[in-house]
Amino acid sequence: MTVSAQDTRTGRVVALCGGIGGAKLALGLSKVITDERLIIAVNTGDDFDHLGLHISPDVDTVTYTLAGVANPETGWGRAEETWNFMKSLETLGGETWFQLGDKDLATHVERTRRLREGECLSTITEDFCKRLGIAVRILPMSEDPVRTHVDTSAGPMPFQNYFVERRCEPEIESIRFEGAESAGVQSDISMALKHPELRCVIVCPSNPYLSVDPMLAVGGMRQMLQGTDAPVVAVSPLVGGKAVKGPMDKVMSELGHTLSHATIADHYNGLIDGLVVDSADSQIPDRVAVAVENTMMHSLDDKMNLARTVLAFADEISARRPMQHERSA
Amino acid sequence: MTVSAQDTRTGRVVALCGGIGGAKLALGLSKVITDERLIIAVNTGDDFDHLGLHISPDVDTVTYTLAGVANPETGWGRAEETWNFMKSLETLGGETWFQLGDKDLATHVERTRRLREGECLSTITEDFCKRLGIAVRILPMSEDPVRTHVDTSAGPMPFQNYFVERRCEPEIESIRFEGAESAGVQSDISMALKHPELRCVIVCPSNPYLSVDPMLAVGGMRQMLQGTDAPVVAVSPLVGGKAVKGPMDKVMSELGHTLSHATIADHYNGLIDGLVVDSADSQIPDRVAVAVENTMMHSLDDKMNLARTVLAFADEISARRPMQHERSA
Repeated sequence: MTVSAQDTRTGRVVALCGGIGGAKLALGLSKVITDERLIIAVNTGDDFDHLGLHISPDVDTVTYTLAGVANPETGWGRAEETWNFMKSLETLGGETWFQLGDKDLATHVERTRRLREGECLSTITEDFCKRLGIAVRILPMSEDPVRTHVDTSAGPMPFQNYFVERRCEPEIESIRFEGAESAGVQSDISMALKHPELRCVIVCPSNPYLSVDPMLAVGGMRQMLQGTDAPVVAVSPLVGGKAVKGPMDKVMSELGHTLSHATIADHYNGLIDGLVVDSADSQIPDRVAVAVENTMMHSLDDKMNLARTVLAFADEISARRPMQHERSA
Repeated sequence: MTVSAQDTRTGRVVALCGGIGGAKLALGLSKVITDERLIIAVNTGDDFDHLGLHISPDVDTVTYTLAGVANPETGWGRAEETWNFMKSLETLGGETWFQLGDKDLATHVERTRRLREGECLSTITEDFCKRLGIAVRILPMSEDPVRTHVDTSAGPMPFQNYFVERRCEPEIESIRFEGAESAGVQSDISMALKHPELRCVIVCPSNPYLSVDPMLAVGGMRQMLQGTDAPVVAVSPLVGGKAVKGPMDKVMSELGHTLSHATIADHYNGLIDGLVVDSADSQIPDRVAVAVENTMMHSLDDKMNLARTVLAFADEISARRPMQHERSA
């Protein structure tokens, strides 16, 4: 589709974003939208307490990616990292299944300290972003604790134990988001979603079941997405019928889902107005408006191109719609 | 004085030990006494909470020194340390006046985690020692919090803020050990001090006012030292009328004390049976038994020689004494 090189539209864009895949599109969006018009709402269902520290893996992945300090090989953690803390921790008999680099550790120690002093996760995140030179707003989906737990063939366990410690080996039976119902959407995200000049909501190509669902489960989030006049557009995380990265293929199979864009469209049914699928794929779902683009984001250009496509697609959907007063008439 | 190369005496030795200077003699003692006969009781008045972590500077200095992983240049911290945590913390706007190396940090994070789970500081310290290959017992003076505070020309402040953040610049008016009276001596130290076969107590060449006094202030410690039949021998921390390291000269002057072995002997008056002073010094106090030895501990041999001298001196004092039943008769 035709995409303008420079984005001049007004109105805010809210991107719902998980970890590595989501962070790539978030980076692309941050390069094509004026800073103050973009809010990146990040999953905190993966957050956990480890070694007495509050770890926010997705928030950190997005922050490091946008700050240009992310490890380009792993997608998580920091570039040019050292591991002397971990090695010493191992000598002392500490838990080492979750890798914490020396640079990365500063984030967890300082965030934990500030949380204990009563600061909000969003305040701390925004302050870290400023200090790392990030101008767009990265916000945790909620200030309240939401914790993803999985019921598996090896029993119930917190997400990180399943994902990192057990390397996704147990078979998943169901996924729960503890605390989500009573949690509230972070207030600036909520205000942006309710704002009459909201331009669009973008669901990044993150794992729908493990990264996006916890966001949708937060009290009021689903209603806000259903209630907005702005278009909601998702990018399918599948390319060629497979996940680009992570355990999504295995999770989808175990939950009894076919690996297809149609499954993704069904999963977001009633929430999204459009789905962007990879240009290499021939099987296009027919139950939702579809845009086709390269969704494999290797280079920064790939990320910016996809960002422009998603925005243009959302704007097209918006343009085709009757005005709000006409619809409500 | 004549010192036997190999120590074959039975009975326990308890060494009261502060940071860097004390750790040197502790290392010497650990090399000349059978492991199970030595207990190193370490000052925790310098402990503090920083960045949400429990830091025990003296315990760590002694532990690292005996494990052979201490930084030989600074005396504190770990050898071949890296500082990526600190650099990242600075970027994030965290407090950086107290240097925490990447390797060192593992000690603080893991100790804090275990303390929060309800373990005793001594249990954690002993476990760390085992894992670092230390066979002698290093024990915090107390499981209870004792916090050294100084009243200065710049107002009252916690010890580390005076010592590290303010680089000992404010003039000291008085020193307080908050919590000391209601704190109890760590139980294994207490048992050793009360044991009828206690061989001797050694007061290491640590700062008497800032490192040894907090130990003496712990509820019951002074009484136990006064009540034991075993000799109590101190090593003067002064060499040539000066402190080998640290702010002792300045502190002693500000508190109105002359820098001399006699002042040290007076300070420990009623507690010690002997004082070891440096062989280069001519001014020898006459109010206490004195042994003369090189107390500048550069090499491991220096440390072991001084350890042997102190033990032989204590044994001599012991031999000159009437037996307990004779004295009490």
